[in-house]
Amino acid sequence: MAAPSSPVLFTDPTSEPCRSVHWLCKAAGIPLRLRATWLGRGHHRQEAFLRVNPRHQVPALLHGQFALSEAQAIMRYLCELHGVLDPWFGESLEERARISMLLSWHHHAVRKTVMLNHNLPVYYIPFYVGEAKHPRPQKAQVEELRANFAESLQQLEEFIGSGHFLVGGRLTAADIAIAPDLTAMDVDPDVNEILAAFPAVR
Amino acid sequence: MAAPSSPVLFTDPTSEPCRSVHWLCKAAGIPLRLRATWLGRGHHRQEAFLRVNPRHQVPALLHGQFALSEAQAIMRYLCELHGVLDPWFGESLEERARISMLLSWHHHAVRKTVMLNHNLPVYYIPFYVGEAKHPRPQKAQVEELRANFAESLQQLEEFIGSGHFLVGGRLTAADIAIAPDLTAMDVDPDVNEILAAFPAVR
Repeated sequence: MAAPSSPVLFTDPTSEPCRSVHWLCKAAGIPLRLRATWLGRGHHRQEAFLRVNPRHQVPALLHGQFALSEAQAIMRYLCELHGVLDPWFGESLEERARISMLLSWHHHAVRKTVMLNHNLPVYYIPFYVGEAKHPRPQKAQVEELRANFAESLQQLEEFIGSGHFLVGGRLTAADIAIAPDLTAMDVDPDVNEILAAFPAVR
Repeated sequence: MAAPSSPVLFTDPTSEPCRSVHWLCKAAGIPLRLRATWLGRGHHRQEAFLRVNPRHQVPALLHGQFALSEAQAIMRYLCELHGVLDPWFGESLEERARISMLLSWHHHAVRKTVMLNHNLPVYYIPFYVGEAKHPRPQKAQVEELRANFAESLQQLEEFIGSGHFLVGGRLTAADIAIAPDLTAMDVDPDVNEILAAFPAVR
């Protein structure tokens, strides 16, 4: 159970990076106090939250007086704080380099091409704000967005190879950072068709 | 001088992430062999390079049999290899967290909003491939792109504050990763006007 001195995670479970931090803490046994910060209700623009993260993004962490944003940085900080950096961020120089490469790659690959460019405009934003305000893109445009992320998924397929995990044959921060952007596709009725060519990713 | 066993950096000096890695190695005294890999001549699509980085991006590193891509990962790997991780990636838990936050933030802030969304289409691509093939965007569109990166620059301004560096009052990996995407604006005749509101960034 999280002690009153445990770090506080400001989190919206509908946000993939928030889910990454929360999942890592569950898997690594890191105690955390959660503070729901719903994007849909504008909590991230309220003054109380802006004092924690003036850049109005979740997740954000407050540990005593120390405030930190960016999911990857929060994951690394919490693992180091609890002395479990190596199992999650790499046991050897090469493992650490590989995990660090995947975390950097994720920003401009899966996170950008699958989640921000496709999942958000195609299903999430129309659902949250209503199709009247933000119409779902036309079929041809959706096809184009999907063509744009095929390369990211193919690269991810090659990273995974014949195993179940990205690095070291075990769950690491790399899997945890990337997976939520993929499971977010589960709301898509075409998900099986989209992922058919990528058996390792699926 | 770089020994024949030193890591080989496949680099195109016109690429900002390549310049970051090269700059860090110069500043940290890390020996490196350079292999010019010109994007403009398609070297990144040639088979010899694809064996080093199948994802056809520079920079890429080859150290013995170990191949690594992603500038941030290469910087971290080389610093660790040479025992200088702390001065460049943080001397304390909080410094490491702050540098890690800035490196993650950079991907979706300055790198994306200034460089990929604005600098590339507005000056670099029309210059490299010719305006006939890739016309410079119209004035109104350029204005819109500039409005989109104002928030990133404002955030960077706040990170820098009244000092000269982002973290710890000294040059770190965070400055080195971000600076080339800003100095790339120097080709813009409007650069002084754009940066007038951001004295610390300038």
